[in-house]
Amino acid sequence: MDRFELMQMLKQHSEEKIVLLVLDGLGGLPLEGRTELEAARTPFMDDLASRSDTGLMIPVLPGITPGSGPGHLALFGYDPLQYLIGRGILSALGVKFPIREGDLAARVNFATLDAKGKVLDRRAGRIPDEINRAMCEKIREIHIPGIEIFIETEKEHRAALILRGDRFSDNLSETDPQKTGVPPLPVKPLDNRAESVHTAELLNQFLDEVRRKLKNEKPANGILLRGFALHQQIPLFKKIYGLNACAIAGYPMYRGLASLVGMDVIETKSGVEPEFEKLAELWGAYDFYFVHIKYTDSRGEDGDFKAKVKVIEEVDSHLPTILNLKPDVLAITADHSTPATYGAHSWHPVPLLINSKWARRSEVTHFGENELVRGSLGTLRSIDLMPLLLAHGGKLAKFGA
Amino acid sequence: MDRFELMQMLKQHSEEKIVLLVLDGLGGLPLEGRTELEAARTPFMDDLASRSDTGLMIPVLPGITPGSGPGHLALFGYDPLQYLIGRGILSALGVKFPIREGDLAARVNFATLDAKGKVLDRRAGRIPDEINRAMCEKIREIHIPGIEIFIETEKEHRAALILRGDRFSDNLSETDPQKTGVPPLPVKPLDNRAESVHTAELLNQFLDEVRRKLKNEKPANGILLRGFALHQQIPLFKKIYGLNACAIAGYPMYRGLASLVGMDVIETKSGVEPEFEKLAELWGAYDFYFVHIKYTDSRGEDGDFKAKVKVIEEVDSHLPTILNLKPDVLAITADHSTPATYGAHSWHPVPLLINSKWARRSEVTHFGENELVRGSLGTLRSIDLMPLLLAHGGKLAKFGA
Repeated sequence: MDRFELMQMLKQHSEEKIVLLVLDGLGGLPLEGRTELEAARTPFMDDLASRSDTGLMIPVLPGITPGSGPGHLALFGYDPLQYLIGRGILSALGVKFPIREGDLAARVNFATLDAKGKVLDRRAGRIPDEINRAMCEKIREIHIPGIEIFIETEKEHRAALILRGDRFSDNLSETDPQKTGVPPLPVKPLDNRAESVHTAELLNQFLDEVRRKLKNEKPANGILLRGFALHQQIPLFKKIYGLNACAIAGYPMYRGLASLVGMDVIETKSGVEPEFEKLAELWGAYDFYFVHIKYTDSRGEDGDFKAKVKVIEEVDSHLPTILNLKPDVLAITADHSTPATYGAHSWHPVPLLINSKWARRSEVTHFGENELVRGSLGTLRSIDLMPLLLAHGGKLAKFGA
Repeated sequence: MDRFELMQMLKQHSEEKIVLLVLDGLGGLPLEGRTELEAARTPFMDDLASRSDTGLMIPVLPGITPGSGPGHLALFGYDPLQYLIGRGILSALGVKFPIREGDLAARVNFATLDAKGKVLDRRAGRIPDEINRAMCEKIREIHIPGIEIFIETEKEHRAALILRGDRFSDNLSETDPQKTGVPPLPVKPLDNRAESVHTAELLNQFLDEVRRKLKNEKPANGILLRGFALHQQIPLFKKIYGLNACAIAGYPMYRGLASLVGMDVIETKSGVEPEFEKLAELWGAYDFYFVHIKYTDSRGEDGDFKAKVKVIEEVDSHLPTILNLKPDVLAITADHSTPATYGAHSWHPVPLLINSKWARRSEVTHFGENELVRGSLGTLRSIDLMPLLLAHGGKLAKFGA
């Protein structure tokens, strides 16, 4: 029996409400002896930690640095080595494209080509979104019999391409040459299957049409395709856990990941206060609330230790908005670490706190990595979180007699 | 996707140098309240631990006592339940025999038989190596059509036998009766497959020839065969991790295990100082240096607590030779525990320290089992070590977008 079969077998209804607060990239590394979380003044989280069970979580496997996709899928209980979400799919989800099983998605970069078709600028000078939208409009005029073509603006030079209506393969080479002074590469099939050969032909035909459509444009007179990915529907939250779940997340990718597992995605402004207020506004309508705060990760990626500390303190100052709702289960954790000293996602275990009247309570007085590890949850894998949250919320029956 | 597929996908080159220092059998049990490692005066390791991340590692599974083979394979990232290295193969590796895929290896004991062919001494009085070599020379005169027979002296009464050139099975019964006063047992196939029946026949024919060749010798006038094992090549370090790795190990078995995974095996004297000096001499030529110190295990097996403490202190006193090289990543750990009070390999988790500028740093002031467990690495499995070392050394790319 696998994990999901176990969950489906044991899931049961309860009135309890669960809040999963994800502070993206929260885990850190010490600067002058303390991590960002240890350095932050967090009276509400500290008090909560002293009444909670705590531990650390390994997002994928020890030593593996997760992207946002695997990091979140693991938090949602999906083994990220089993459920691989390609970059094209994440782009499509990011622009709220209603992707379907069998769709082929890719990331698009608008680029500037010279008169001989060689790449002058792989990002077309980071064109404004307006030009991006106009170029997408032109590309939408292309018709290839038997398939539907969708292209949606992301931001600046980035867009998402989706093909629908045929038997596609995503085992294809990318067209971005990764340098200037050479032409974009053709799409090549990476295996001999008929669908790989056919999909490569279709895409090369599409790229010819794009070249014709954009040849008099500037600076965006070409496109580069990367991250081909076929969409395969994954088991839904409702089916696995029986949960009526929603996502409160300001950023497109996290909204996309939540929609992928079947959560209702709530319209919200991005930011600690508006997202927490949105949670309060919705309170009672769902069993499970995924709240995503992006800025801990952003400031970590900026390498700005102090600014990351400030975001953590901002979250703490607004925590009473959540505490006042008296959620039956409240977890605070992260999808991965983004230590400011490292300036990027990293493999380090992430902080975890689970507050509920059934939590064992650790001898912890501060919400910081070095204290949390002493909690009775120990060091878990992130895919273990969902069963724990359900258990604390009375949503899992006993296994076996 | 399995671990090795993941590693192959994420591996990337970096200039960082990794040192894996294995103190064989380091983990201990307390005598008068402190383990060998806790009792040892280890100022350099203590200082290092306070600047490192720490934890404990379970070599195979909780409760499982590993031999040297599984213990080391796990450290090298190979699931020891999936990659089983038979005792015959370890013997062949131990004598530096260039074993090939499909070879059948076995351990040989020279024994003394009486006039009726019954075993008088299962170890032939622990004959000197010289007699062993002379007996091997005689056995090499045996010819069986269609196969090659190799026999190599190990030490005292022990040798390694290797058959090559046919389709063999290793699902065979051993010939050592494990007691005196009875004749050696014939080899029996343990299943009905043609290759099992055939291999048993070949070996019994070989044993008849040996009996004839040695019948006038003494005290070594017979052999006993144990640990039949077919050799199957396992994935190499270079392919899985992209590492240019070497092994600095004085003892044959560890040199053999390192060569099995494709490390360059460096000629060295056995001992803390010569091995550490060899590392310094080679510094820069490899990405990954496996350094193996045997004596912690030997003194543990002797049941000599004080002597094991002394070996640990000797390692500590020479640690500056390694520290002065400023390795980017330095791990100190063990393949298994060999508590002196227990006097044998045991199942207890082993100490682990990872020093690198990207280590989270635990609140630990002494390199001892009870402190290490508080580190943020928690309790890992030994197969998790390699990905962690690669991550700290910048040798693994991000997983997923």
